[in-house]
Formats: sequence, C-alpha cells, structure tokens
Amino acid sequence: MVKTKQIQVQTRGNCHVIDITDQVADEVTGSGLQAGVATLFNVGSTAGLTTTEYEPGLANHDIKAAFERIAPEAGHYEHEQTWHDDNGHAHVRASLLGPSLTVPFTEGRLTLGTWQQIILVDFDTRPRARTVICQIIGE
Amino acid sequence: MVKTKQIQVQTRGNCHVIDITDQVADEVTGSGLQAGVATLFNVGSTAGLTTTEYEPGLANHDIKAAFERIAPEAGHYEHEQTWHDDNGHAHVRASLLGPSLTVPFTEGRLTLGTWQQIILVDFDTRPRARTVICQIIGE
Amino acid sequence: MVKTKQIQVQTRGNCHVIDITDQVADEVTGSGLQAGVATLFNVGSTAGLTTTEYEPGLANHDIKAAFERIAPEAGHYEHEQTWHDDNGHAHVRASLLGPSLTVPFTEGRLTLGTWQQIILVDFDTRPRARTVICQIIGE
Repeated sequence: MVKTKQIQVQTRGNCHVIDITDQVADEVTGSGLQAGVATLFNVGSTAGLTTTEYEPGLANHDIKAAFERIAPEAGHYEHEQTWHDDNGHAHVRASLLGPSLTVPFTEGRLTLGTWQQIILVDFDTRPRARTVICQIIGE
Repeated sequence: MVKTKQIQVQTRGNCHVIDITDQVADEVTGSGLQAGVATLFNVGSTAGLTTTEYEPGLANHDIKAAFERIAPEAGHYEHEQTWHDDNGHAHVRASLLGPSLTVPFTEGRLTLGTWQQIILVDFDTRPRARTVICQIIGE
Repeated sequence: MVKTKQIQVQTRGNCHVIDITDQVADEVTGSGLQAGVATLFNVGSTAGLTTTEYEPGLANHDIKAAFERIAPEAGHYEHEQTWHDDNGHAHVRASLLGPSLTVPFTEGRLTLGTWQQIILVDFDTRPRARTVICQIIGE
C-alpha cells in the first residue's frame, strides 16, 4: 500500500528552519495505515531535510552557524560563474544535508523522540515555495 | 510485510561510535524476509546513523575530528542559552549527520561492503541509552 | 513488490561527482511499477550519495571545496596509521555524506526537481568500480 502526498512549505530562505512534523504526522494519520515508513523528499537542490530539537537557539542560530563553516556564504563558488547568481553556498549545503529522510511509524505514530522534530532547512538566498514529497508505505 | 523492532544501544556519549551491524543483520534474519529494506532511525536529537569501516582510527579519532571542525565543542551555541546545558554542538552534529539510514537486503543479507559497518554516533555529552528503530519491509 | 538491481559506476576517485539519474530512472521504468520508493545504497565506505544541480561548477569544484574544509586531504588521520594508506579523509567524508538515498516515484517517474540530479561522490584516492544498489518497492 503506497500513498504519495505533497507537503507545501513557504520559506524565507537564508537557512530558514521550518518544523514540518505536524504535516507529516497528519499524512500518516490520514493514510489509515498502522505500521510502515514515511519517505520524505525535498524537491529541488537548495534545501534539505533532517531532524532537530526545534527551539529558537538551534533553529535560528546554531544550525546556520555550522553550515557557514562548511560552505561560507561569502566564499567563492564556481557555480556562480556558471549562472551569474549568488546561491553557490546554498547548493553545496543542500547536497551535504541531503534531500531525503525516512521516518518509521508504528500504531499510526511516527517514532520520533520527545524533543525531535522533522525540519526543512531552506538554504536558498530568497523566499521559496517548497514541495516535500511525503510517501507512505505500510500496512 | 512490515516488521518493526527496537535495537538498544548503551553509549559513552562524546562522539562514541558504535557498530550495530550485527544487531541489524539479526533483525533481517529474524524477519524471515528475503528481499527488502531495513529502515534505521535514531530516536532522539543528539545522535545519528551512517556507515564506516569500523576500525579504531576512524571510530575513536577521525570522525570526531571532522565533527569538531563543523561544530566545535567549545563554540558558542544559542541552544545552551535556552536550556542552560552544554550540548549545543551535539544537536548540530546530529542534525548534519541525520537520524535515518536505509539499507537494502537480498537473499536475507544486508548489501553492505566487506569493510562497511552500520554505526551509531552519539554526540551527547554524557552516557546515553539509545533506541534505534529497525523497520523491515520486504517479501 | 520488491525489485533489486545493481548500478555499476566507473569513477576517477578524488571527489569525482557522477550523475546516475538516468540509470535510476531506467530501473524505475524497467520495474513496471507506478508508485513507490527507489532506495539507493552505495556499497563501500569511501563514496556517498546525494542530489545536486549537476553542472560543472558544483560537480568539479564547489562540492569538493566544502569537503576539503570538513576533512582536508592533507590532514592527520589515525585510519592511515592503521592501514598505512592515504584515504582517511575519504572515509570521513563518505560517513558524513552517507551511503543511502531514498527517492519516491509516482506515475513511473522520480519526484526530482527540474535541476536536481542524483549523484555519487567518490572520495577515494584512486579510480574505483562502484556498485550502487537500486531497490525499488512499490505497486
């Protein structure tokens, strides 16, 4: 049994961290399935998915600071020579974080920790309308 | 056919790298399934999952050194202002590594390389009892 | 319904980024399935999988530069003391990127963005023949 839905997210870009846990949980509930896996996939190459404790310190500061070390916004990117744009760092960060996340569920509930939320991180340099595929396979 | 199990892991924290390959392989064998995917998911937001060649150099030194570059233990973390704790770097590292891993199996065996083991990396600053969900879907 | 295939990739090593989107799409088409998930898994511990906009700037320069910050090629690695080899940085980079990627498909097509390709990044220090497991589960 496979059910494929889309979760729409409006972001501010620039490392905006958005909690999408409730939307994913709603899709699991709506599927009527009891046990299985929710495969989440960010469509596009300048945002990624992971989990965190969603609180302002991590969401608004600490995660961004780490990605600034890995791929500084002011660094040199050949990608920007190709397209004459400004989001080379966004592409590199998204590739490192990865576009996919798989979260099991049992008894109709995601197996997240108490202080563990599913987040989308949008690295692009402008606000974006994002689509996250939420595909539920189970029984 | 979906089978959901829990793997329990006792860690020392502080970037402790633990090989959980045998536990995962046992769950695949125990499922009686021949082909499918083992979805692994760390419950909690200060540890993550990946694979490595599990030998002392990588497990005890090299992986930790890389995460120290990305999110230094002695750095400033707003998370720690929120909770007055000391594990901001652990949260950031776990988000970057990611909580989920998917490993296919065929003929009842995980498709790992010869020198490739499944590891949990616990970034928290104290020993922890960890739960890894091991959900097997297949036929 | 589970179908497991292997994708063979010949690399140059040294952070060679290879677009494997067409091979994965062919496996989805060949499966005859309409909706489900393609679980991709790199066999071995010195390469990883993710997505990017596959263009020369990112593929030949920018991604490599970020991994050089995380795990410099000329750094000290205890792994190299263990085996007297030279690829400690390759192992660390591969563990951080991760070996697995899950891409949903609907109506027989991968749910990728227009400028989003599936890539293998080979971090090893020599050319390698790589095997990526492509396991398709769906209906």
